Amino acid sequence: MKRYEKFADEIAELIRSGVLAPGEKVPSVRHASRTYGVSPSTVFQAYYLLEDRGLIQARPRSGYFVREHARRLLPEPEISPRLSETTDVDVSELVFSVLASLRDPDTVPFGSAFPSPDLFPLQRLARSMAQTVREMPGREVIAEMTTGHPDLRRQIALRYMVSGVMLPLDELVITTGAMEALNLCLQVVTQPGDLVAIEAPAFYATLQVLERLKLKAVEIPVHPRDGIDLGTLESRLGSLPIKACWFMSSLQNPLGASMCEANKEKLYALLQRHQVPLIEDDVYAELYFNQEPPKPVKSHDHDGWVMHCGSFSKSLAPGYRIGWVAGGRYAEQISRLKLMTTISPSVPAQAAIADYLQHGGYDRHLRKLRHALERQQGEMLASAARHFPASTRVTRPSGGYFLWFEFPERVDSLQLLQLALAQGISLAPGPIFSATRRFRNCARLNYGHPWDKRSENAMELLGRIVKSF
Amino acid sequence: MKRYEKFADEIAELIRSGVLAPGEKVPSVRHASRTYGVSPSTVFQAYYLLEDRGLIQARPRSGYFVREHARRLLPEPEISPRLSETTDVDVSELVFSVLASLRDPDTVPFGSAFPSPDLFPLQRLARSMAQTVREMPGREVIAEMTTGHPDLRRQIALRYMVSGVMLPLDELVITTGAMEALNLCLQVVTQPGDLVAIEAPAFYATLQVLERLKLKAVEIPVHPRDGIDLGTLESRLGSLPIKACWFMSSLQNPLGASMCEANKEKLYALLQRHQVPLIEDDVYAELYFNQEPPKPVKSHDHDGWVMHCGSFSKSLAPGYRIGWVAGGRYAEQISRLKLMTTISPSVPAQAAIADYLQHGGYDRHLRKLRHALERQQGEMLASAARHFPASTRVTRPSGGYFLWFEFPERVDSLQLLQLALAQGISLAPGPIFSATRRFRNCARLNYGHPWDKRSENAMELLGRIVKSF
Repeated sequence: MKRYEKFADEIAELIRSGVLAPGEKVPSVRHASRTYGVSPSTVFQAYYLLEDRGLIQARPRSGYFVREHARRLLPEPEISPRLSETTDVDVSELVFSVLASLRDPDTVPFGSAFPSPDLFPLQRLARSMAQTVREMPGREVIAEMTTGHPDLRRQIALRYMVSGVMLPLDELVITTGAMEALNLCLQVVTQPGDLVAIEAPAFYATLQVLERLKLKAVEIPVHPRDGIDLGTLESRLGSLPIKACWFMSSLQNPLGASMCEANKEKLYALLQRHQVPLIEDDVYAELYFNQEPPKPVKSHDHDGWVMHCGSFSKSLAPGYRIGWVAGGRYAEQISRLKLMTTISPSVPAQAAIADYLQHGGYDRHLRKLRHALERQQGEMLASAARHFPASTRVTRPSGGYFLWFEFPERVDSLQLLQLALAQGISLAPGPIFSATRRFRNCARLNYGHPWDKRSENAMELLGRIVKSF
Repeated sequence: MKRYEKFADEIAELIRSGVLAPGEKVPSVRHASRTYGVSPSTVFQAYYLLEDRGLIQARPRSGYFVREHARRLLPEPEISPRLSETTDVDVSELVFSVLASLRDPDTVPFGSAFPSPDLFPLQRLARSMAQTVREMPGREVIAEMTTGHPDLRRQIALRYMVSGVMLPLDELVITTGAMEALNLCLQVVTQPGDLVAIEAPAFYATLQVLERLKLKAVEIPVHPRDGIDLGTLESRLGSLPIKACWFMSSLQNPLGASMCEANKEKLYALLQRHQVPLIEDDVYAELYFNQEPPKPVKSHDHDGWVMHCGSFSKSLAPGYRIGWVAGGRYAEQISRLKLMTTISPSVPAQAAIADYLQHGGYDRHLRKLRHALERQQGEMLASAARHFPASTRVTRPSGGYFLWFEFPERVDSLQLLQLALAQGISLAPGPIFSATRRFRNCARLNYGHPWDKRSENAMELLGRIVKSF
């Protein structure tokens, strides 16, 4: 990380924490340079960056000011209350019916699971695809179906290395998206009837997979900013025969919470002590807003207990269906299970992504993508403050493209969804994120699409429906 | 089917059945035209076709003669003996260790599961890929992940229609290869501990999947030419609570057997009477040698009991990992299970194949491929007759790219594999095709690679090793 990026993160933290208030002037270049002991050009670069991230804006001849929407206008939700110890999962039917209702491409896609494809370098990726597929030797098309395309595996291992995680290449298994990776991991370490610790709220597919595999959930509350409640987890690990944990330690879906480095280390130590494997779902890893990437729990993994699952679907190539798992001590079992179920993900898609990673400018694209998402988050937060009841609570994640709204108690988000759909707006209602259909007054909204008049109108309309309850 | 194609098939049948012996002159054009009541040009075209299929050859100024290797030089194997009623499957470890040993790309690939990639139009397919991926709208890359790419689904349904099977479009689910389709089907209709009827010998992955899902096998003998023994199946269905059948009714792997139309109809009636679903693995469907495609059991399916699984991996695009299932009454359950496990196969790979099917000349390619495989089968059969002990038995399938050899009792094919590998030759030993490691003296050999001096030498060497037992 360069000096100006670090400095920009420091200023961003001051804005987020409210030390620098919305509308307030940020220190002049000369002043900042003297106060913080950095060169004026470093300050300049940092301010340009913060402007691009949507946190400050220049006023002609007056300098830089904190943008209005950078304020935490609505309060954050509380941590979810303690839950029953274990629970059967019974939500799959509901999830399917909700997802089916979200499928209309003409709605305002607040309910979508993906960011806008316009934010991805699909044309550049298409060039990589066209070139690699033309030059691919015939035998390569049928070979290397075992652990994946060698170039892609090297490129992924390289990215781990650059972010400070040394990964033995033979831990890596390429999969048909992260969803396959997560399924394989869970099947390798559990039997029907086993207990699995998951988050509350959790990504709905996690719930569906548990239900399908006849596993019981041990729900661990997630703090909207700090992530998994380690206290509850520790007590559950002590009292219950938990066979695996399935957690998102960074940019958790749907809350956006990220555990701090120290807690990730504690989490690993805890799991190691109890000899319980962690399935770490890290599909939003690249979508952090600060300049420093959050490290996964995997970075503390010295004994192979962590199966770290990643994907290109949220950051580069949705629809290509390429994910992976760094499987720790379970890598070979995962690879064998994959050979028995799908054999291999598409070889041309793997080769195209490998070529793009090497030549396409992935890091440049990611910087642009992160700034766009951060700006759009600001827009949605500001719009929510304008149109939603003041008692609404909302998360403020440091990455990703989801906000989690907690509406007043009387709001029923499943009903809200129906009313919104009738107006051409989708959203993801709270109950699909819970093994037991909790979070009735909550909803996840996607800000991953360029903000425009239509988005603003949709927020206004949503606000009106919420108030009508 | 054109008149000359039908006529060519009739002559081919005379050759296969021995009515026209190897070395014998086939009727002159004038004679054939008069005898069979077809025009001389029809006879000409038929003879050209038979020459291309490797069954007859022209001698200058003498006319056409049946080729030497078209003879059934080695006898066919017998049907496998009756087996125990039900059995646990315990062969997965053996399969993995054998498959690992086959992975060296420098061996003569008699053990391979794929035909040579040189037989596929990979360059033409690459053009389809390059073009579709460049023109693909961004939203298409993330949409349509549910049941598959709409163009591809239409093209597949069209191929069913042309071959006489009317298929409601909503039965079709596109999958990551046929392997995923087969896994999904089996999971939808079984629970751990259930009985599943499979073939003996069976495709080794079938056995691995049963073992993995903790299902018990009911092995049904397969006749090397006629396919599944319906008598045994009927008695087993009467006496055992079989939850599903997993059969290849055409070009069975490894025997190459194809059930006749009447038996397929009987099979369907039997399953319908017992209300037992059929998972029909039909991945070699396009590789028939005669002009008329064999119809699947699916063509008799009026009540939705058949889940018909297909793939492009053996006929067009290995490594693209695109297969499908026409799921009958189970289609929606299959589609949901897929959404929970891999979500979707690669969208660009689907689009590329859809474009190729529409514009690439698939049928022309398939004709060339079939003729190449038929010629290569002739070469391997002739070579086996030259080099293997006379007591060796071998199948003579009417399609595909596998021969099944039954060596003298004293030959141990697992040991044979080790000895052959040491000489740079691979093969697929009999025991990996059996739930209980039978078929010790058998092996499957792949003739899907262009025949050359190296293949001939490898056969000679193999023959010598076999004789050394």
